[in-house]
Amino acid sequence: MFAIVMAGGSGTRLWPLSRRRRPKQLLALTGETSLLQQTVARLAPLLGPQEVYVITSAAHVRPTQEQLPQLPPDNVLGEPLARSTATAAGLATVLSRRDPDEVSLVLPADHFVADEARFAEALRDAVRAAERGYLVTLGIVPKSPATGYGYIKVGQRLHPSSAIALVERFVEKPDAARAAAFLKDGGYLWNAGIFAWRAYTFSQALHRFQPQLAAALEQMAALNRVPGWMSEVSQLLEPLPAVSIDVGIAEPAAAEGRMAVVPLDAGWSDIGSWSALLEALSATQGSSLVASGQHIDRGSARVLVHGGDRLVVTVGLEDIIVVDTPDALLVCARERAEEIKAVLDEIAAQEGDRYL
Amino acid sequence: MFAIVMAGGSGTRLWPLSRRRRPKQLLALTGETSLLQQTVARLAPLLGPQEVYVITSAAHVRPTQEQLPQLPPDNVLGEPLARSTATAAGLATVLSRRDPDEVSLVLPADHFVADEARFAEALRDAVRAAERGYLVTLGIVPKSPATGYGYIKVGQRLHPSSAIALVERFVEKPDAARAAAFLKDGGYLWNAGIFAWRAYTFSQALHRFQPQLAAALEQMAALNRVPGWMSEVSQLLEPLPAVSIDVGIAEPAAAEGRMAVVPLDAGWSDIGSWSALLEALSATQGSSLVASGQHIDRGSARVLVHGGDRLVVTVGLEDIIVVDTPDALLVCARERAEEIKAVLDEIAAQEGDRYL
Repeated sequence: MFAIVMAGGSGTRLWPLSRRRRPKQLLALTGETSLLQQTVARLAPLLGPQEVYVITSAAHVRPTQEQLPQLPPDNVLGEPLARSTATAAGLATVLSRRDPDEVSLVLPADHFVADEARFAEALRDAVRAAERGYLVTLGIVPKSPATGYGYIKVGQRLHPSSAIALVERFVEKPDAARAAAFLKDGGYLWNAGIFAWRAYTFSQALHRFQPQLAAALEQMAALNRVPGWMSEVSQLLEPLPAVSIDVGIAEPAAAEGRMAVVPLDAGWSDIGSWSALLEALSATQGSSLVASGQHIDRGSARVLVHGGDRLVVTVGLEDIIVVDTPDALLVCARERAEEIKAVLDEIAAQEGDRYL
Repeated sequence: MFAIVMAGGSGTRLWPLSRRRRPKQLLALTGETSLLQQTVARLAPLLGPQEVYVITSAAHVRPTQEQLPQLPPDNVLGEPLARSTATAAGLATVLSRRDPDEVSLVLPADHFVADEARFAEALRDAVRAAERGYLVTLGIVPKSPATGYGYIKVGQRLHPSSAIALVERFVEKPDAARAAAFLKDGGYLWNAGIFAWRAYTFSQALHRFQPQLAAALEQMAALNRVPGWMSEVSQLLEPLPAVSIDVGIAEPAAAEGRMAVVPLDAGWSDIGSWSALLEALSATQGSSLVASGQHIDRGSARVLVHGGDRLVVTVGLEDIIVVDTPDALLVCARERAEEIKAVLDEIAAQEGDRYL
């Protein structure tokens, strides 16, 4: 068994802390260690560090290796070109040269999980289903009618005694009314983008649903690993379309009854925005005021302060995000945290790359 | 005629921009120049720079001189001990050695006036009444039922054709209900702490209402101005009680019918808090979003951003104050800006003098 940690995200929604040079997974957002470090630590009950691979953009290989000294340096794989998650998972599988019979866990580097024991248990269930030939995903038990996630419609159980079920279908991010209906129905889970499969099963699925990608990966696997060979990999990646695992593999596999889902109820968050981080940390810490750095408050609620080197004083704030970095400060209404991507476009237009 | 600019305030309510070393009057809060510089510039239609004196704490003499290169350096008077405004005005009168027949304007260094022409006109009216022997104050035409100011009950007019009137009495800061009643009544003005009187008239009032202070000032006036003489001034100041002009002079003078008031309707603000600054600048600039420094906003209203060297981004804020300084950041609900003084006590308790 081995794991592929997908560390290709840019995490612009966590600006000004996340920058091009320091994307979300490298940041310590939920504790002393980075989301990447926590993700790798979360795998320790199942896997040794030799079995963990991280695929990231070529520019982030060095800082990723520095954050994970327990991994063999070669287990940090540099992706010369970003072509979405199906390609990244395929490339990592090729580069790792693992046995096709092994089960591979594929998981994002930048998620948060409060209950790590339950998470490990769900992964073990996923591995068992993967050993039986399923493509397996973890489905998060929804706590709110969120419109920011895709949903999984749960189908028939694999066994009457097991919580593992077939995926009936994947549902795109719903509007508020449909999300509320899904929550009420109870038969829907959030799609977290966490997968398990035998390497061979994945390869077969690629051949069936993404033949162009499968062919390119076969060519990569056949390359001689001589100095400069990554430029040949890059040339093979270049013409490929950006295809996600969700759309390119999981959806068509579900339609053919080959996709299984393991429910997970462990305080999961994708930390897709500052408000998502506030929500996750509020739940963990039991306080609606979440602060790091040197901070003094008077009467604030539902506030996140991510401090730096300076004293931050907040007075009477409600539903506000404050992010203090050496060259840029963000003060944002909590319910409008999703708009930071749009603000970044304006910053780029006014200031160029300086703050990106 | 001469003017005494009272620059003794600490301005803690404008923390973190105002600090002990850099009190409010030295800050550029409303434009390119400091409140002190604007106050002195506002006197130019009436007085040459030779006729303007500034009294400030001994520690602030140097930066005050630097901000006012047009004044003779000796016109910046250092107060060895702070003993409130009646003492400061008396000391400045002694130190300036002006003719007792001259009219003296006494005004705070840290106020804002939008309409400077009207302000100069009101001062001219005040000077005329002062020449007739009155102690004169400027009374601000109220725009709201403010509870943060003392009020002046306007009495009989000096002439039927003139807006200048006797002060019937001074009223302490009212509660909200009384403030609303004052506004409705129409016969009340805000007490702005701006005065005009002949030096001789002031001296007589001191003898009548503050004999201990008057005696000490006479002793100071008689001192030989040899090196080190300020330590003798300091010894004379030391036992004096801290008496304000309002309580110690203006109130008892009004009771004897000797206090006149000139109404002023010129966009005045004492900038007593960040929210007062936001109000004054919003009115002047015609926008509820007031920002300095490098700033990008998306959809905020009733927001003040006082920026420093960093990029400040605000998203969807309402009724928020953001003050960015190199070592401390304040984010404060607009309606709670008055609580900054209390926060400073907590900062002092936790951090000592570091941020004061």
